Amino acid sequence: MSEQQTTARVLRQGFLGPDGTFCAAALRAWDPEGRAEHVPFATVPQALKALRAGEIDATMAPIENSVEGGVPATLDALSQGTQLHIVGEVLVPVTFVLAARPRPDGSRMPLADVGAVGTHAHAWAQVRTWAEANLGGAAYVPTLSTAAAAEALARTGELPYQAAVCAPNAAATFGLDVLAEGIGDNGGAVTRFVLVALPGRLPAPTGADKTTVVLFQKLDRAGGLLELLEQFAVRGVNMVRLESRPTGEAMGSYCFSIDFEGHLAEERVRESLIGLKRVCADVRFLGSYPRADGQRGLVDPGMRDGDFVAAREWIDALGG
Amino acid sequence: MSEQQTTARVLRQGFLGPDGTFCAAALRAWDPEGRAEHVPFATVPQALKALRAGEIDATMAPIENSVEGGVPATLDALSQGTQLHIVGEVLVPVTFVLAARPRPDGSRMPLADVGAVGTHAHAWAQVRTWAEANLGGAAYVPTLSTAAAAEALARTGELPYQAAVCAPNAAATFGLDVLAEGIGDNGGAVTRFVLVALPGRLPAPTGADKTTVVLFQKLDRAGGLLELLEQFAVRGVNMVRLESRPTGEAMGSYCFSIDFEGHLAEERVRESLIGLKRVCADVRFLGSYPRADGQRGLVDPGMRDGDFVAAREWIDALGG
Amino acid sequence: MSEQQTTARVLRQGFLGPDGTFCAAALRAWDPEGRAEHVPFATVPQALKALRAGEIDATMAPIENSVEGGVPATLDALSQGTQLHIVGEVLVPVTFVLAARPRPDGSRMPLADVGAVGTHAHAWAQVRTWAEANLGGAAYVPTLSTAAAAEALARTGELPYQAAVCAPNAAATFGLDVLAEGIGDNGGAVTRFVLVALPGRLPAPTGADKTTVVLFQKLDRAGGLLELLEQFAVRGVNMVRLESRPTGEAMGSYCFSIDFEGHLAEERVRESLIGLKRVCADVRFLGSYPRADGQRGLVDPGMRDGDFVAAREWIDALGG
Amino acid sequence: MSEQQTTARVLRQGFLGPDGTFCAAALRAWDPEGRAEHVPFATVPQALKALRAGEIDATMAPIENSVEGGVPATLDALSQGTQLHIVGEVLVPVTFVLAARPRPDGSRMPLADVGAVGTHAHAWAQVRTWAEANLGGAAYVPTLSTAAAAEALARTGELPYQAAVCAPNAAATFGLDVLAEGIGDNGGAVTRFVLVALPGRLPAPTGADKTTVVLFQKLDRAGGLLELLEQFAVRGVNMVRLESRPTGEAMGSYCFSIDFEGHLAEERVRESLIGLKRVCADVRFLGSYPRADGQRGLVDPGMRDGDFVAAREWIDALGG
Repeated sequence: MSEQQTTARVLRQGFLGPDGTFCAAALRAWDPEGRAEHVPFATVPQALKALRAGEIDATMAPIENSVEGGVPATLDALSQGTQLHIVGEVLVPVTFVLAARPRPDGSRMPLADVGAVGTHAHAWAQVRTWAEANLGGAAYVPTLSTAAAAEALARTGELPYQAAVCAPNAAATFGLDVLAEGIGDNGGAVTRFVLVALPGRLPAPTGADKTTVVLFQKLDRAGGLLELLEQFAVRGVNMVRLESRPTGEAMGSYCFSIDFEGHLAEERVRESLIGLKRVCADVRFLGSYPRADGQRGLVDPGMRDGDFVAAREWIDALGG
Repeated sequence: MSEQQTTARVLRQGFLGPDGTFCAAALRAWDPEGRAEHVPFATVPQALKALRAGEIDATMAPIENSVEGGVPATLDALSQGTQLHIVGEVLVPVTFVLAARPRPDGSRMPLADVGAVGTHAHAWAQVRTWAEANLGGAAYVPTLSTAAAAEALARTGELPYQAAVCAPNAAATFGLDVLAEGIGDNGGAVTRFVLVALPGRLPAPTGADKTTVVLFQKLDRAGGLLELLEQFAVRGVNMVRLESRPTGEAMGSYCFSIDFEGHLAEERVRESLIGLKRVCADVRFLGSYPRADGQRGLVDPGMRDGDFVAAREWIDALGG
Repeated sequence: MSEQQTTARVLRQGFLGPDGTFCAAALRAWDPEGRAEHVPFATVPQALKALRAGEIDATMAPIENSVEGGVPATLDALSQGTQLHIVGEVLVPVTFVLAARPRPDGSRMPLADVGAVGTHAHAWAQVRTWAEANLGGAAYVPTLSTAAAAEALARTGELPYQAAVCAPNAAATFGLDVLAEGIGDNGGAVTRFVLVALPGRLPAPTGADKTTVVLFQKLDRAGGLLELLEQFAVRGVNMVRLESRPTGEAMGSYCFSIDFEGHLAEERVRESLIGLKRVCADVRFLGSYPRADGQRGLVDPGMRDGDFVAAREWIDALGG
Repeated sequence: MSEQQTTARVLRQGFLGPDGTFCAAALRAWDPEGRAEHVPFATVPQALKALRAGEIDATMAPIENSVEGGVPATLDALSQGTQLHIVGEVLVPVTFVLAARPRPDGSRMPLADVGAVGTHAHAWAQVRTWAEANLGGAAYVPTLSTAAAAEALARTGELPYQAAVCAPNAAATFGLDVLAEGIGDNGGAVTRFVLVALPGRLPAPTGADKTTVVLFQKLDRAGGLLELLEQFAVRGVNMVRLESRPTGEAMGSYCFSIDFEGHLAEERVRESLIGLKRVCADVRFLGSYPRADGQRGLVDPGMRDGDFVAAREWIDALGG
């Protein structure tokens, strides 16, 4: 991360805490040597608020899960308020365990004793099938995060739930017994986290980059979303994520949070954004950054930087 | 509602309970005379499961909120599992109050005494600005629904929160004091609910209808979403909601939940669906039903039923 | 040709005469055994007029040349007046010779003696480079057809030209000397002829067919030609020829003569035409017929007849 | 015409002669004070050849007729060979008369005595209906131009035709009797002429301009013409003429001659051409010039120069 090279002081990076969350895992994956200070926050909006206030240098935030979809709190916090830029992304496999306090005699709690389960709503949604098959009619108690459920269990036995659904790491961190592991209904679930910072120099293009924008439609334009997507299509830009979000103004008024292949430094991206800016009520640029999977998108003939440069030189030579 | 006219027995309609939720309000608005029996469920998936099992005749479920966006649990429950049809929709204005138990001396709790607030995560997201301004650093405690937070408060004073964010009606239902009203950050917030039933006769077209589908893309097709939207565009069909949802198969694999104007009985709708069925991996039809707002969409020349019929007659006369 | 099998009387087929024209060659290629009577006409419009009057059963007419482009007289005669159908096509390689009367002493005229050349304007355009290099400043004298130039030369020496540009066959037919052969500027030139008849049973689909239509735009529609082409694109129909023609109403008012792959009996063709009929001011169907080159177009997945049938059955099963 | 102001010597402007052609009328309309020398040529290709050779400064050439369509000779001469630019256009109403030599006794020839008519093929096509009704079975004799038919009649009575179809002005110029006037089948016929010059400074934008290009498709691209038209559509550029022309390489290989609203100096035109250059095998720019009708096209919101400039400034401010 470029910030680390350009400053002597220790960077401060926020995350959805406490330790043991998937977000903490994302931050460790991003900064395995722990050169930055990792600062936990109770909610994503609080972490982004601290970032905007200059109290921290960056925030790791979940943006989408391969099973549960987009994370509204993050999407909305990025598309509203002071401008922020995504500077990187991390993919974290999501594996769930059911964890409980060791019983007073040190033995492991049997599943039959679990009358209620505490966890974050998104996690509960992802273990629902397993829970119905294995926990009978166990009640669900919502918590602020998966790790918060585990942490509370570790602290006290006086809770409305006896077991937590959390990351394996959270169970270990808080000294809980693992009653069952791999309980996610979808074995390959992944959560995508983005590292967000105040606008500054963009990460250098790597040839395998993504760009994120939010598009606000003009209400008086007939073509709608189709017209916006054509701005990408005519420049050969591949969209990889599209999430519609309400603008909050009225039912049926949406903006679109979009990821596409390529970097702002590339011509096809730059020209697509110029086109979108013209036909949208507003375009919010949320950053260009290296893809976590390192996959280089295939750029079609006629859409490469050299094609744009050659075409522009041709036009300039025509006079006009 | 047609079911009510065609059967003598009392219909059973599920909703996200307890009484006092916005979902309960939606069901009352749909069935003001209370001809059906209203059956509360703890979660939307449970209510839909009961519907699929034949235990109830219909379920009222929130599908999107003008501030918070789509409701993943409902969207996913409709797009997976046994086929269900939306047979109607209701728009419910979302107004929040802060409610608390009357103090032992019968007096109203001052805001300064509220150290923690219980409510559903979606509601908390919609009162955040007010809460920061008026409740200082009050903690947030997630609950299963706004009404559940109020109901629990009414039952016991031994909770990790002292006040609930809920509908005005919930405060009244459970005998709570209203500490503050109209606390939503967005005064005009609306939640859209849909009444869901097992597939049967579609509601008759009214001229002001909507149709809901879920589109699953073929992975090997280049055009992507653009290609799907063109199927609507060439038949003059207006899309009014588009929500991308992960299919759960892999990061980056999405399906699209879409509402558009018109009824399956109309030619432009029928032909669009035929076109989509051909180019999609799968299309799930989720019903045609009258719009809650009664607005008749403008159908462009060349896109009306008569235009399709005339064109088909012309073709038939050509032989072939 | 189906007409031949279904009638005992000898068919009469018109062509642009006299004998020795490329059009005559096309008709011979179509009917090599000479089962029909071949009736020459001075111009294409006259031949089509006779067809419409019922005096002949079919007319062979040039529709485009690979060098000179569309043949306006044919295109306009087909797009106006009583409806006609194309029932077949023939591709004729276009090879030109320079031909002259044998001199009185039986010797061949030297090129230096050719002060003026008679031929059809389209032929002259195709030998211009050769003529400039080999005939110095020879003047050009327009004639009604290439064969007419040759025929007149054979009849009399009293003409404003001494040599004719015509087909090798015309030189032979009229007993002229060939002064030079292969004089076309483009060695691979081909003219495409179509056999036209009054509407009747369409030729049966062969799997390698073409369909020809004329599209008249609605003046008040913004999308213009793009909108028309999208009707093909969403059904996977490949266009192989597009010719714009003035409607004659005003400068800038055009119709489009279009050939595309497929037969009216195929679903994707049928549905495209239904779509076009809806968005055009008018659509004139000019026939589905076997391709002269026998090439089978590749039909994309989702665009085959079975895909349409399956999609329609799915819709029908939904009710509506 | 700007050339006239910047040089002392008399300009030489070629046209399809002789005097009395519609092309001569176009040149007079362009240069009513006769400041340039008007040089007649027998054919359009000859006039353009002289222009390319530097023998003349400009050439007036017919490019399309509202009834007969595009003029292949002009279209092809512009799209092949040394680059030329269109610098202006003129619309000439096309009115035909039937003209003949006064009889020896000074009386007017009766229509019944007209056994054959000489004229250019395009003119004959435009008076066909009148001729059939009024000249019975009169034969048609092709000539190089309408005025050439009149001029020859004036010179000698020894021709294979007795009357000429020509412009009223040609009859007057050559001292012929007008036997009938207004004989065109389409009363409002107009021919559009373009003034062509070697590339130099483009005519300054007037706000009511047109641009002409020739587009050569890449053979390996699926989208075909649709893809090209989308390059215009996403920048709000209106096409006003599209003519497909064979490239001469093979049957089915076309290029497109296109006129659209706007001037190369305008952003939406410039960006469309850059886009086309990228996706085409080749783009030939044939000039931006004031419209003859002075009509200002409506430019959609988001497509004006200011919109492009603002969008580009926004992008530049993002860094990248």
